[in-house]
Amino acid sequence: MSLDEAKTKPHDRLRAYLEADLEAVNGLIRARMASEHAPRIPEVTAHLVEAGGKRIRPMMTLAAARMCGYKGDAHQKLAATVEFIHTATLLHDDVVDESGQRRGRPTANLLWDNKSSVLVGDYLFARAFQLMVETGSLNVLDILSNAAATIAEGEVLQLTAAQNLATTEATYMQVIRGKTAALFEAATEVGGVISAVPDAQIEALAAYGDALGMSFQIVDDLLDWGGASGDMGKNVGDDFRERKLTLPVIRAVARADEAEHAFWTRTIERGRQEEGDLDQAMELLRRHGTLEETRDEALRYAGLARRAMARMPDHPLRDILADLADYVVARVN
Amino acid sequence: MSLDEAKTKPHDRLRAYLEADLEAVNGLIRARMASEHAPRIPEVTAHLVEAGGKRIRPMMTLAAARMCGYKGDAHQKLAATVEFIHTATLLHDDVVDESGQRRGRPTANLLWDNKSSVLVGDYLFARAFQLMVETGSLNVLDILSNAAATIAEGEVLQLTAAQNLATTEATYMQVIRGKTAALFEAATEVGGVISAVPDAQIEALAAYGDALGMSFQIVDDLLDWGGASGDMGKNVGDDFRERKLTLPVIRAVARADEAEHAFWTRTIERGRQEEGDLDQAMELLRRHGTLEETRDEALRYAGLARRAMARMPDHPLRDILADLADYVVARVN
Repeated sequence: MSLDEAKTKPHDRLRAYLEADLEAVNGLIRARMASEHAPRIPEVTAHLVEAGGKRIRPMMTLAAARMCGYKGDAHQKLAATVEFIHTATLLHDDVVDESGQRRGRPTANLLWDNKSSVLVGDYLFARAFQLMVETGSLNVLDILSNAAATIAEGEVLQLTAAQNLATTEATYMQVIRGKTAALFEAATEVGGVISAVPDAQIEALAAYGDALGMSFQIVDDLLDWGGASGDMGKNVGDDFRERKLTLPVIRAVARADEAEHAFWTRTIERGRQEEGDLDQAMELLRRHGTLEETRDEALRYAGLARRAMARMPDHPLRDILADLADYVVARVN
Repeated sequence: MSLDEAKTKPHDRLRAYLEADLEAVNGLIRARMASEHAPRIPEVTAHLVEAGGKRIRPMMTLAAARMCGYKGDAHQKLAATVEFIHTATLLHDDVVDESGQRRGRPTANLLWDNKSSVLVGDYLFARAFQLMVETGSLNVLDILSNAAATIAEGEVLQLTAAQNLATTEATYMQVIRGKTAALFEAATEVGGVISAVPDAQIEALAAYGDALGMSFQIVDDLLDWGGASGDMGKNVGDDFRERKLTLPVIRAVARADEAEHAFWTRTIERGRQEEGDLDQAMELLRRHGTLEETRDEALRYAGLARRAMARMPDHPLRDILADLADYVVARVN
């Protein structure tokens, strides 16, 4: 690794390596987003698809295919597929969460309305489906249809688990697998499948995608509590206010004494939150050490991801992806 | 045709003929609706999938396959696929229309909420996708992914056309093609595709499904105005109150004089409806004869459907489907 490489963030190195592919994917996304009959569709999606998306999921597909020596253009179609599926779930999440902002821009449902978010999301799902059919690989279709079911199942599970103090760690893991890891896993796996590499390599790619996605989502949930040190920044506490049970809280609830349990019941289950409750919640997480434990869990998954990459043949992209796994957790203070 | 057959409605004859297949499809629907991790899913879908659905779309697939001499079980999987896609669009429509009742039961979004409707709809789409991948036919996947895009595009188009007096007949036709005809067409076509009959027969099946679907939806829209005679029953006028432009209104607007145009602008475009407006709207449709014309349009599509069936080889199901096309329009007084 050169000094330059050491200083550059892994996702920037990934982007630089895949630049030509990414440009083709962006062209494909623009072309397939268009609708002859319904011009509102690109209006709604443009601000989601064009703006500021890190394209991390499509980069997984592109990187996996390139690492496996793929020659062709199906990897670009699948990368666009994966971004469309991701964008569609964001649109449907907008309806669900009544969230006001996403990526710093107004959400589609404020720019337009819930109707547009649901139906344009459906349109992107259908476009994703068309794109993957074009690759002509039943194996790819099988992987992506299973991922779609896991994603939808996870979203419904999250809904039923919300505000329920009895939510277990196993349920949480299933939720974040659907919410994030399933698409990361499928995105990476299909890059290997179209390259027709040996099964052991396809399994390593899938294992990498899953572990990276799990780590990514655990870190995201931890950052909502200000990271492992519980820094009370201005974006801290959204999940608490929305009464979402993530790993730090699930573990703290499991170890709560009677008074602590009453606190969680009032704030999360009954939703009767008062001034100072967020500080009190943070204090309970610190007391039981669940923020540090959550970081350890993210590190464990990052280690799994790194070790999965070690099962791949030598390649510059292999090293970048391995570094990316570490970098995801390094975001946490 | 025996006397008994002459007295029995075509869809009842169809159901009787396909009884064993339909039972297998119902079993498949129940099995695939289940979710290991998210038990809410069958709770939300059961009242839509189990109750009172006429299963008209799955019957198209089963009938087409049987007519083509298909031996296997892929037709049952595709029939379940089609019903899942239909049910998912109903769930997403519930969010959209804020409709209070569907098929005489509370809609999912009142029983549960908008969130469940969106996400469980997504789950059914994913399940549909898995089922069709299992058939292993890329041709089938191509047809159904194109249908999914047309459906979603039509829904968005309907949204942008709503309350817009400039909506053309061509736009209306595109909307109902997406809303109804695209799935009827795909459902019938795939029954032929899996049977590997000659292209001319597959084209005839697709043409039948499209024309039947168009006729079906035009009749539905006409019945919302009390049929060709404009009978003011208790379920008349929903589309007017929701300011939806269907064929009778689009044609009446096109021929409106100045005063009539002002009426449509106030009631449909501005949504300022007063007591007596529905009667006045009905009077305008009668004056311009657009209710009868709309029935003629439905009859024209029914004729196209019947003639498409005439291109198929002799088979009892061929005659039942041809009769069904006439029966759809015979619902109109």
